[in-house]
Amino acid sequence: MSKYWSKIVQNIEPYTPGEQPRDKRYIKLNTNENPYPPSPRVMAAIKNAADETLRLYPDPTCRELRSVVGRYYNVHEDQVFVGNGSDELLAFAFQAFFNPGKPILFPDISYSFYPVYAQLYNIHHELVPLEDDFSIPVEMFFKDNGGVIFPNPNAPTAKAISEQAVASILKHNMDRVVIVDEAYIDFGGESVVKLIKEFPNLLVIQTLSKSRSLAGLRIGLAFGHADLIEGLNRIKNSFNSYTVDRLALAGAAAAVEDDVYFRETTSKIIKTRDHVAGQMRELGFTVTDSKANFIFVSHPEYYAGTLYQQLRSRGILVRYFNRPRIDNFLRVSIGTDQEMNLFVKAVKEILSGV
Amino acid sequence: MSKYWSKIVQNIEPYTPGEQPRDKRYIKLNTNENPYPPSPRVMAAIKNAADETLRLYPDPTCRELRSVVGRYYNVHEDQVFVGNGSDELLAFAFQAFFNPGKPILFPDISYSFYPVYAQLYNIHHELVPLEDDFSIPVEMFFKDNGGVIFPNPNAPTAKAISEQAVASILKHNMDRVVIVDEAYIDFGGESVVKLIKEFPNLLVIQTLSKSRSLAGLRIGLAFGHADLIEGLNRIKNSFNSYTVDRLALAGAAAAVEDDVYFRETTSKIIKTRDHVAGQMRELGFTVTDSKANFIFVSHPEYYAGTLYQQLRSRGILVRYFNRPRIDNFLRVSIGTDQEMNLFVKAVKEILSGV
Repeated sequence: MSKYWSKIVQNIEPYTPGEQPRDKRYIKLNTNENPYPPSPRVMAAIKNAADETLRLYPDPTCRELRSVVGRYYNVHEDQVFVGNGSDELLAFAFQAFFNPGKPILFPDISYSFYPVYAQLYNIHHELVPLEDDFSIPVEMFFKDNGGVIFPNPNAPTAKAISEQAVASILKHNMDRVVIVDEAYIDFGGESVVKLIKEFPNLLVIQTLSKSRSLAGLRIGLAFGHADLIEGLNRIKNSFNSYTVDRLALAGAAAAVEDDVYFRETTSKIIKTRDHVAGQMRELGFTVTDSKANFIFVSHPEYYAGTLYQQLRSRGILVRYFNRPRIDNFLRVSIGTDQEMNLFVKAVKEILSGV
Repeated sequence: MSKYWSKIVQNIEPYTPGEQPRDKRYIKLNTNENPYPPSPRVMAAIKNAADETLRLYPDPTCRELRSVVGRYYNVHEDQVFVGNGSDELLAFAFQAFFNPGKPILFPDISYSFYPVYAQLYNIHHELVPLEDDFSIPVEMFFKDNGGVIFPNPNAPTAKAISEQAVASILKHNMDRVVIVDEAYIDFGGESVVKLIKEFPNLLVIQTLSKSRSLAGLRIGLAFGHADLIEGLNRIKNSFNSYTVDRLALAGAAAAVEDDVYFRETTSKIIKTRDHVAGQMRELGFTVTDSKANFIFVSHPEYYAGTLYQQLRSRGILVRYFNRPRIDNFLRVSIGTDQEMNLFVKAVKEILSGV
């Protein structure tokens, strides 16, 4: 605590990113990174962009990338916004569309950055409790509110809701913005990007960090009616006109354009995930129906906090959240088949007391 | 205007970055970019970093870069903060150190992003009028206030104040934070980075965009007591844990390490600036004493707005601010000698009615 800190800094509880220990090499299954490298076209595009033009500001409107993204998703470039990772987009969206006063709604078990944004921007919020099986209770979002945000698939539960379910939430909230955070959508969920043409209140947020293997490049995308995109631009241009650098712009366009590579790697991850989920169930774990690049698992007889520690001491990092309702669960990112074999082997050994 | 916009978005007047027209090739003297390419070591470092590790998140603490920066500036790495351009740092600093209530102070003619931040974060501010010759009236910052921010050298006036003058402002504001925005310090001003050891209320902000030719990479630096840096980190980790990508981290470290190149290019710009300033004075212009990589000029008989338009139609972009007190001035970034010769030639032709 410092006397120089503003009231906001004094009171805020910042988000805690997954640990990045440096004491030794770990099998990192704790931050939902993609185990496969980005498309080779990304590296080529970046090397090509690493020239003397770095002395010049990037295009603050990210127009070329928005054009590539628009063509890929079949939307107009004015319906696309590019940010420095999806976290920046979420922060902009909280400022652009939510007000102090009537509370916004989001699930009680969800991305733990949402309550931090709410606190940072003085937005009241109300938690919507998930069902016992972690399903999202769609009807609970039909009541009066100041806005809605939820991840689909949800994190860390990994469970998804259907396009139809999202549409029903949108229909019951035509007077306020509904943000659907699709960070993990490419691993089996149904994206609602196409619904932006039908619903002027819909903002969809995606990221290139997971399915395009570009966590290190920091690119997030938002899709919505041009009015919503303009709202995001007004916040961005009151914060930092140039949030995305030239190399990230070039690399991101190459990633979106290499659809074959994208489909190959996401398919591999889905296949590995479903295989590991089956193995974990055989070991007695409860495993939610994952549509993400991670699984969410719990053992009835083996405390998750202990399992996390034991895995860590064996050089395997997973994510443990010491929070109500999920304190006996682990979130395990899907790595390569080889990494997941080592993970399952380690779990077996721990459970059998080896 | 959209009914979905928050009250903030409805009321804010965003910052307007310098124009980036695409209709033809211009001599760009309008956004204070460096005319020389970045150090060749930057490009090499980026190409080296463009590998499969892009699938992994960057180090959210930017530790290696902070260590390189700390060694260069002779401060501890805990006294260094890295952001996505100095604009992001300024936004974080407004949130971290200023409160609604007692007004903060900044010059009436200054970086036009400051009032935007003040509006975005609901910070009251009071403008301190510059002297008629655009000098900063140091004593005016001695009165009670909620915080102080000013650029040194100032923008767009290009004038600098001495280390001693900054120290006197710091001494009169020991109970609140004084932010010295040194975006242009490397072109002849006296940096106060060394004063962070003496003044716990001092935050110095710099950028690699200008003197290190890296506007396209988005790297800003902040220096201050570890408590202030922690305040910035608390805001950052409540906004976006990973604001600086892997390529920018690698390129920035290489840029800071190539001190010889840095000194060569900044010296060339200073030499060109002083030469052009002399030429402009010979043409009858008032030219402020510039310590930046731009000059601020006014002609008693030729209206700046017209001159801006005439230069533009000849393919030369400079910056014109249609604002009180400076509406007869142009801000002209320093390009290569060749570019500046073309600029001076065009000005001569316009003045003589050719």
